[in-house]
Amino acid sequence: MIAGIDIGGTSTKLGLVDQGRVVDRARIPTTGHADAGAFAEALVVAVRELVARSGGTLGGIGIGAPNGNQHTGTIVMAPNLPWKQDVPLAAMLGERLGVPCTLGNDANAAALGEWRYGAGRGIDDLLVVTLGTGLGSGLIVEGRLLLGPFGNAGELGHTTVVIDGRPCTCGRKGCLEAYVSIRGMRETFRDLGGDPALLGTEGVLPIADAARAGVPEALQTFRSTARWLSVGLSNTVAITPPRRIVLFGGIARNGDLLLGPLRERFDRDLLNIHQGRVDVVLSELPEDDAGILGAAALDCHGS
Amino acid sequence: MIAGIDIGGTSTKLGLVDQGRVVDRARIPTTGHADAGAFAEALVVAVRELVARSGGTLGGIGIGAPNGNQHTGTIVMAPNLPWKQDVPLAAMLGERLGVPCTLGNDANAAALGEWRYGAGRGIDDLLVVTLGTGLGSGLIVEGRLLLGPFGNAGELGHTTVVIDGRPCTCGRKGCLEAYVSIRGMRETFRDLGGDPALLGTEGVLPIADAARAGVPEALQTFRSTARWLSVGLSNTVAITPPRRIVLFGGIARNGDLLLGPLRERFDRDLLNIHQGRVDVVLSELPEDDAGILGAAALDCHGS
Repeated sequence: MIAGIDIGGTSTKLGLVDQGRVVDRARIPTTGHADAGAFAEALVVAVRELVARSGGTLGGIGIGAPNGNQHTGTIVMAPNLPWKQDVPLAAMLGERLGVPCTLGNDANAAALGEWRYGAGRGIDDLLVVTLGTGLGSGLIVEGRLLLGPFGNAGELGHTTVVIDGRPCTCGRKGCLEAYVSIRGMRETFRDLGGDPALLGTEGVLPIADAARAGVPEALQTFRSTARWLSVGLSNTVAITPPRRIVLFGGIARNGDLLLGPLRERFDRDLLNIHQGRVDVVLSELPEDDAGILGAAALDCHGS
Repeated sequence: MIAGIDIGGTSTKLGLVDQGRVVDRARIPTTGHADAGAFAEALVVAVRELVARSGGTLGGIGIGAPNGNQHTGTIVMAPNLPWKQDVPLAAMLGERLGVPCTLGNDANAAALGEWRYGAGRGIDDLLVVTLGTGLGSGLIVEGRLLLGPFGNAGELGHTTVVIDGRPCTCGRKGCLEAYVSIRGMRETFRDLGGDPALLGTEGVLPIADAARAGVPEALQTFRSTARWLSVGLSNTVAITPPRRIVLFGGIARNGDLLLGPLRERFDRDLLNIHQGRVDVVLSELPEDDAGILGAAALDCHGS
């Protein structure tokens, strides 16, 4: 069995994966530990508990983390995690638990998870895009996860779709993520003159509810978001064409609100030699298990 | 020795390559043949003449062609070539000459040529961009030419830099090639209110001459072109980061008119995790031989 560990900003999910299924799971807080060493120790305890309860043997560990660098096995100054220095978590856990441990970027983990277990099974040229607080992406190219020479390939969220456009959290302007993300969609709704009272306190769900109730600015928000996403996806296809694109995350899971206008637009946005050759589908993985499966897939890939 | 064949819209250059040098060369017209079979026959004759003159032995053939598909060895309905059907030229020449023959896209050939013989030697993550009538590109990723599942990866010229922007020859709008190409630069000069009399009949040279004479619209044309190119390059870096970018072709070879403003801009246009990690250089290959060397490199890669 492989332990998959999915590190998020507030909590960390872990689970044991056997033959593509999560057979047991646990959760610990990401924050509140004295330091990265204490966090690693809490993970070691949690993994040992899961393994003891299962009665099986641990064969390896995969960890998906924001800003995880698979070349070095470290988490590199992730802005949403508590540790401001680089954390060599793969080595820390591998040594303590005596098994191979691979740590990688969470978006790459999601890509591997879809490739091995999800909607991208058997598709050796695959783009997986995670739509949520940010826009993450991972690419499988000719049957291998694309890492690049610095371990940071696949940053589709930070391609420019509007020159001198909206400020992005990365400090630059006009990034895809500034438009196609929870924050971006809320800003688009306001830009379109939508009633701020409809926005609620957070998330995209209030906009989706308003769209279902026929509020024009909410419907247009989804259409505009689909247009920007279509441009970002078609630019990726032009550079390194996948056969399939899998969309994952909260924004994508609003029925046809996003996928409908995206599919209308996407094929037309492709260069003629790519038209009709790339399909766009939603993730089929259960949301709670996707991060764990993806992290476990990192291990299978890396070892 | 390898024969490198570089098929252009009006003429086809061929040469014998030995140890990275073109030791003899010839040229035949691309147009005016009865059909593709007659063109292939003319190539066979020309290659045999070169080999006989050299006294050496032919080990293989590489062919670079617009719309060349390396997976199938065919030229696929290239808009600027005389044949409107697919031409399986690799098989036609390989059979007649009795040696392995690889046919590929001309931009990919240029990328392989720079990688093996030019400014990209030893750089296993490399982007080569050809700036001329169009904007072609080829990518070496982790030491392999990126082809993609359909043999048509690396179409940087047809990424969108301006949503609903200028019409492109591909039928879409706002493509990088509509801005960063000879045609695009001439249009930019006119859009900026430059004096049409300065444009001459064709090419970028008149704009370069005007820029050197201090004509403001000409200088701004190079700056605007550099900006669009910087966005296109940085988008590619975000998706699949190279260590080096090599610029090739007439537009790039105007001293610092393009490279100066591009270098000023480019590093700032990169995501912070990529800044300082990608250098931009000009091709070092002799212009007349680059296409032949690149085509010959296709063979070395493919066989």
